[in-house]
Amino acid sequence: MKNNRRKFFKTIGLATATSIIGGLYPRQVSASKKVKWKMVTSWPKNFPGLGAGAETLANYINQLSGGSLTVKVFGAGELVPPLGVFDYVSSGGAQMGHSGAYYWKGKTEAAQFFSSVPFGMTAQEMNSWLYYGGGLKLWEEVYKYFDLIPRPAGNTGVQMGGWFNKEINSTDDLNGLKMRIPGLGGEVLARAGGTPFTLAGSEIFTSLQTGVIDATEWVGPYNDRAFGLHKAAQYYYYPGWHEPGPTLECIINRQAYNKLSKQLQKIIDIACKAANIDMLSDYMAKNYQALEYFEKEKVSMRQFPREVLVKLNKISDEVLLDLSYENKISKKVYDSYTNFLKRVRPWTLISEDGYLSSLK
Amino acid sequence: MKNNRRKFFKTIGLATATSIIGGLYPRQVSASKKVKWKMVTSWPKNFPGLGAGAETLANYINQLSGGSLTVKVFGAGELVPPLGVFDYVSSGGAQMGHSGAYYWKGKTEAAQFFSSVPFGMTAQEMNSWLYYGGGLKLWEEVYKYFDLIPRPAGNTGVQMGGWFNKEINSTDDLNGLKMRIPGLGGEVLARAGGTPFTLAGSEIFTSLQTGVIDATEWVGPYNDRAFGLHKAAQYYYYPGWHEPGPTLECIINRQAYNKLSKQLQKIIDIACKAANIDMLSDYMAKNYQALEYFEKEKVSMRQFPREVLVKLNKISDEVLLDLSYENKISKKVYDSYTNFLKRVRPWTLISEDGYLSSLK
Repeated sequence: MKNNRRKFFKTIGLATATSIIGGLYPRQVSASKKVKWKMVTSWPKNFPGLGAGAETLANYINQLSGGSLTVKVFGAGELVPPLGVFDYVSSGGAQMGHSGAYYWKGKTEAAQFFSSVPFGMTAQEMNSWLYYGGGLKLWEEVYKYFDLIPRPAGNTGVQMGGWFNKEINSTDDLNGLKMRIPGLGGEVLARAGGTPFTLAGSEIFTSLQTGVIDATEWVGPYNDRAFGLHKAAQYYYYPGWHEPGPTLECIINRQAYNKLSKQLQKIIDIACKAANIDMLSDYMAKNYQALEYFEKEKVSMRQFPREVLVKLNKISDEVLLDLSYENKISKKVYDSYTNFLKRVRPWTLISEDGYLSSLK
Repeated sequence: MKNNRRKFFKTIGLATATSIIGGLYPRQVSASKKVKWKMVTSWPKNFPGLGAGAETLANYINQLSGGSLTVKVFGAGELVPPLGVFDYVSSGGAQMGHSGAYYWKGKTEAAQFFSSVPFGMTAQEMNSWLYYGGGLKLWEEVYKYFDLIPRPAGNTGVQMGGWFNKEINSTDDLNGLKMRIPGLGGEVLARAGGTPFTLAGSEIFTSLQTGVIDATEWVGPYNDRAFGLHKAAQYYYYPGWHEPGPTLECIINRQAYNKLSKQLQKIIDIACKAANIDMLSDYMAKNYQALEYFEKEKVSMRQFPREVLVKLNKISDEVLLDLSYENKISKKVYDSYTNFLKRVRPWTLISEDGYLSSLK
C-alpha cells in the first residue's frame, strides 16, 4: 500500500503544467499552483441523488478554489468497482472518494456507525453527533489507520422500508421472509427468522418479479422509481427502520490532503459540509415528487405494525451491542453513538416529531 | 440611499493596503487583492446559537478565501441596533448582515416566508424549498428591490411553544392570554382571543415574573436556559407551532457582491450553505443538554392539546392567506411556499415522522 502511494505521487505530482484551468481566476490563484485530483465513487456516474451529490461536491471544490484544485469525478467501475473505492483512495490511486461508510465493515466494523445503523439516528441527529458530539473525531480516528480522512458529505434522509409481495401483519410474517437487505439490517432480519439476500442493484427487479425474493429495500421514492420497483411488488412499506438517515462520506487520502495548503484543506472541509445539506435538500424535493407519482400509480403504501418494529428494534439493540464487542475502537464508537442518540432523541421527539405529529 | 452607498464605496474602497492578514497564505492569494468586510448582526456578540452562527460564517469565509476576503462581525448595537441591519446593509454601511427575514415585514410582508411562519415548514423542508423548490430565487427577487442578496445561513430547528404561568387545556384558555409573541404568531394569538406583547429580550424575565404577561415564547431550551425563564414560569409548552424551523439569513449588499470575483462570490454562497447546517447541528446538541438540565430542575413539560393546535392552525392559514393579498410579490411567495409545503409534507410524515413516531 505504502509503496503504491509513493509511486503514485512521484508520477502525478501535485501540480500539472498542462492544467486547462489556468488563468480563469487570475486575481485569486497563483497560476503555478494547480492541483488536479480524482474522485472515485461507489455510484454510477450521475446516479440520481448519490452520484449527483459527488458532482456537487467536486463543483464546490472547483469553484471555491477558483480552479486551483480541480476534482474529476469517476463513476463506479470507471477506475475501480463500487466497493473498491476505500482501498483505492487509501493506497493513493485516487486522492478522494465518495461512498458510504457501511460498505467498509470488512475493514473495520466500527465504520457502520458513521453511515447508518438500524433504529439509529436521523440525518439531523447524525449531523449533530458528527459536528458537535465528537462523532467526526472518532471517525477520523477509525480511518486514520487506513491513511484516510473522512468527511460527512451527504444524507438521503429516512429511507423506505422496502417493496414487499407479502403483507407484514405480525412478527410471524418475518419468518422465512426472503428479502434483499444487506448489512446490519440483514443481520437483524436473519435473527428475526427471515433470510436476507445481498443482491446488486441490477439483479433486484427480476429477483422480485420472479419470486426469488419476497421483498427488497432500496433507497426511497426517488431512486426506487427509477428502478421501476412498483411494477414488481404489491406493497411499499415504511419507515426505513434499517437506514433512518444514512450519511454519505467523502474520503480523502491523508498524504494528498497533507500536501495541500491550509486554505485548500479548508475548502475541502467546508465544501463537504455544504454538500451534506445540499444532498438532503435534493432528496426531499425529489422524493415527494416520486411519492406523488406512486400515488397516481395506486401503489399500496403500508406502515409496519408497531409490534414488528418493536421486535426489530430489540434485535437491533442486540446486534449493535455485539458490534461493540468486536474490538476496542468498535466499543468506543458504539458508546459515543448510543449515548448521543439516547440523549438527543428526547429533544427530537419534542421538537421535530412533537411538531410534525401534533396535528395527526 | 444610493448616494450613501456611492459615498461609502468611495471612502472605504474594496481593498485596503493596510490589511493585517496579508501574506498569511501566499500560495493561494494575490497579496494585492485583500478585501475587508463588515458583518452587522441582530444578535449580541457571540450570542449562543445565533451569534455563534454569524462568527462561524465569517470564519468560513476567511478560511475559504485564505484571507483575501475577511469579514469582521459586529454584535447588535455596535454599529447599528438589532433591527437596523437590513437598512444598513441595503445602504452599503456594511457589506453583509446576519439576521432573520421575519424582522423585515415592515419593508416587505413577503419576507416572513423566508424565515418561518406559523405551522410552516421544518428546517429540512425549508432547505429543500429554498435550494430545490425555487424558494431562494424568489427570496432574491424580493430583496433585489432593496439592493440585497439573501442566503440561508442557519436554522434553529423547531422551537418551543414557550413558558406559561397559565395552563392551556382548551381553546378557552387562549382568551385573554397575555403572551410575549411577536410577528405572525402574535397575530394568530390575537385572532384566537389573546393579547400579544412585543417585548425586547431583556424585558421578558421581569414581565413574566411580575405577571405583566402570562406567557412568553423565546427560542428553545438552549437560549431559554441562558435567560433563566424556568425560574419565572410554571410550564414549558411544546411544540413551537409559530416557529417550526426558522431560517436565519445572511444578507449581502448587491454592489459589494458584484465587485467581488466569481470565486469570492462562490465562497460566500457555499460558506452560507455550510453555516446553515452547522447552526442546526449546534442547536440540536445544545438543546438536548439544556433539556436535560430542565428535567433535573423538575421543569413541568406540557404538550399543547390537539384541539388548541387545530384552532391555531386554522387561524394561521387565514393569517397567511391575508398576507398573500398584500401585494403581487406576497402572493407569488405565498403560492410557492404553501404549494411546496402541501406537497412535501406527506413525504416528511412518512419518512422523518414515520420513523420517529413509529415506536411511540
